[in-house]
Amino acid sequence: MHAPSSIGIVTPQVATFTEPLLLSSSGQLETYQLVYETYGQLNADASNAVLVCHALSSDHHAAGRHHESDKNPGWWDALVGPGKAIDTNRFFVVCSNNLGGCSGSTGPSSINPKTGQPYGPEFPIVTVRDWVESQARLSETLGIQQWAAVIGGSLGGMQVLQWSITYPERLKHAVVIASAAKLTAQNIGFNDVARQAIRTDPEFHDGNYYQFNTRPTRGLRIARMLGHITYLSDDSMAHKFGRSLRQKAQFDYEFTPEFEVESYLRYQGDQFVNRFDANTYLLMTKALDYFDPAAAHEGQLNVALQPVKANFLVVSFTSDWRFSVERSREIVRALQSNRLAVSYAEVESPHGHDSFLLEIDNYIDVLRAYMTRIANECEADSE
Amino acid sequence: MHAPSSIGIVTPQVATFTEPLLLSSSGQLETYQLVYETYGQLNADASNAVLVCHALSSDHHAAGRHHESDKNPGWWDALVGPGKAIDTNRFFVVCSNNLGGCSGSTGPSSINPKTGQPYGPEFPIVTVRDWVESQARLSETLGIQQWAAVIGGSLGGMQVLQWSITYPERLKHAVVIASAAKLTAQNIGFNDVARQAIRTDPEFHDGNYYQFNTRPTRGLRIARMLGHITYLSDDSMAHKFGRSLRQKAQFDYEFTPEFEVESYLRYQGDQFVNRFDANTYLLMTKALDYFDPAAAHEGQLNVALQPVKANFLVVSFTSDWRFSVERSREIVRALQSNRLAVSYAEVESPHGHDSFLLEIDNYIDVLRAYMTRIANECEADSE
Repeated sequence: MHAPSSIGIVTPQVATFTEPLLLSSSGQLETYQLVYETYGQLNADASNAVLVCHALSSDHHAAGRHHESDKNPGWWDALVGPGKAIDTNRFFVVCSNNLGGCSGSTGPSSINPKTGQPYGPEFPIVTVRDWVESQARLSETLGIQQWAAVIGGSLGGMQVLQWSITYPERLKHAVVIASAAKLTAQNIGFNDVARQAIRTDPEFHDGNYYQFNTRPTRGLRIARMLGHITYLSDDSMAHKFGRSLRQKAQFDYEFTPEFEVESYLRYQGDQFVNRFDANTYLLMTKALDYFDPAAAHEGQLNVALQPVKANFLVVSFTSDWRFSVERSREIVRALQSNRLAVSYAEVESPHGHDSFLLEIDNYIDVLRAYMTRIANECEADSE
Repeated sequence: MHAPSSIGIVTPQVATFTEPLLLSSSGQLETYQLVYETYGQLNADASNAVLVCHALSSDHHAAGRHHESDKNPGWWDALVGPGKAIDTNRFFVVCSNNLGGCSGSTGPSSINPKTGQPYGPEFPIVTVRDWVESQARLSETLGIQQWAAVIGGSLGGMQVLQWSITYPERLKHAVVIASAAKLTAQNIGFNDVARQAIRTDPEFHDGNYYQFNTRPTRGLRIARMLGHITYLSDDSMAHKFGRSLRQKAQFDYEFTPEFEVESYLRYQGDQFVNRFDANTYLLMTKALDYFDPAAAHEGQLNVALQPVKANFLVVSFTSDWRFSVERSREIVRALQSNRLAVSYAEVESPHGHDSFLLEIDNYIDVLRAYMTRIANECEADSE
């Protein structure tokens, strides 16, 4: 049973690409596949297509459920569906798993056709730009010349920025949520701690753990626990857990989890290692670290954004300290200095970086209003 | 050669206690020793003694050098010495390594007299209150009835608070720097990630690693890297490292350290594992987590502080997000509501939590002014 506004049962699809993809690292992938989902109907002139880009640890499954007894819907089900902010009654929504992923797109855990073994550490490091290239090819497969909008939060927002730079003609609107034009040193530091936790796990075997029939679960669990703290705000953790003890009134003076927050984080870590590949985690964090379109222009973001033609909606959340409002303001200022149309919403929210995944009224309203305008444009153009 | 204001060569001393120490955990230590250093001269009526309490990863070596070719002075050498803010020409300064430590005081790496083996995980969990008890016994050994001041930063500040509660008559002044009356859920979360990194390291052997002639260096290194990020501010990391690359102009698209911040954090982690014991790290973080004197009084800090008689100086740093200014303000408000004399300085500093260790002019000035007043009091009383 689904809530009335859910998209219902969805089925992933796979697109296979046999033309080599040249990568930022100068390596290339001879062949690869992308797994993706679509929601809603593409209209006759293919003008109502919206590309949703996912963040570090999510995938192509943005909305709906895979089968009737599926416990959890897609990661953005709160925002994507019939009558929702990204309305699948009006838009044809596409979401693909990033190259290097572990949910069906070719990645380190996929079989390397050259060796018949999983790629493991042989899988090349991919960048946000590489993802945009791979998604551009997917657009062609789907017959989409121009996206009505490309939308993403966090790492997904970086993909949106890159789309607007690389293919200015191929998107009308860009929606960048809780993102940044580059990571700070603190962000890179957190990512490197996570990577070191994985890479120094004795079960990592230099990334060849598949061959040893093992996985660096200890390291990946630590990486996730750490990540999770940075996705929440100090205040939201105080509100959610405070100093509450776990099913007891006094300290045990032991190393078993005593505070609720400890058992929550350990649970998050334990769950994550069951669904995510450590090599993919490493690749995603590197893509985050590398992203910095202004670097090639002496740090001038407005120069990097010179090719951009899309209209922008930029959204940030007040308590997000991983991708602070200042990072979004930098994007807005650069777009404005290029005299581009940009709407900016700084949404009051106590939920930290994770806000972009949540049903926060002001946020939904802002996104809905912007998307309604786009849908109206598409329908006017189609008439 | 020493700077003119250095205390010069110092020699640690050891005090042995043979009366059992009853602990917060209801366990006890039959015998234990504390290693400590003293700087300056105790005056005739023992009224000029100052106790300095150390933070998580430091020890009894607060000032001076151990020998002529000693590369680094004690951890608070910038503040403790002849003519310095804590002036050893006027004060007799004592600093002891916390019980459970790994620098000479009895701890998990010490030999358990009952077994002839290192304590390892048999060493009981100790609390801030236990440290104050052990320091109170040290005071007696030293013939100090009342401290002119007890001073500490971070975890050391918690010891100061506990001193003022447990032994209100035994200190005249309390100086609490960059500290808190309790950790937040976020703090506990970071500590638990660090502990899990250590405890899931296969070389940890449930804390018995000494017997296996190994150490959980991977986990301890991760713990330190993570800790280090939280001791700095986002801004200070941006200023110190930014997105600078390490001795190169372009990305290698490899997992070797590429950004300066990565190589800095890894270096910090590598250095730390050479000097610190993992079991001690676990104990120190637990003591931090447990500290919460208000918990026994329905969360009312002012009630917990009811016994306090000392005058207070509380100092916080604007960019400290691990022990934010709000945590210091809570202490100040509680003291004020008890009509105690409290001076509070919120020092503008970009250096985050680590500020309390640094030579920051405004901070030094505040501390020097307060300590001068205390020294004048001592000398007036002695006349």
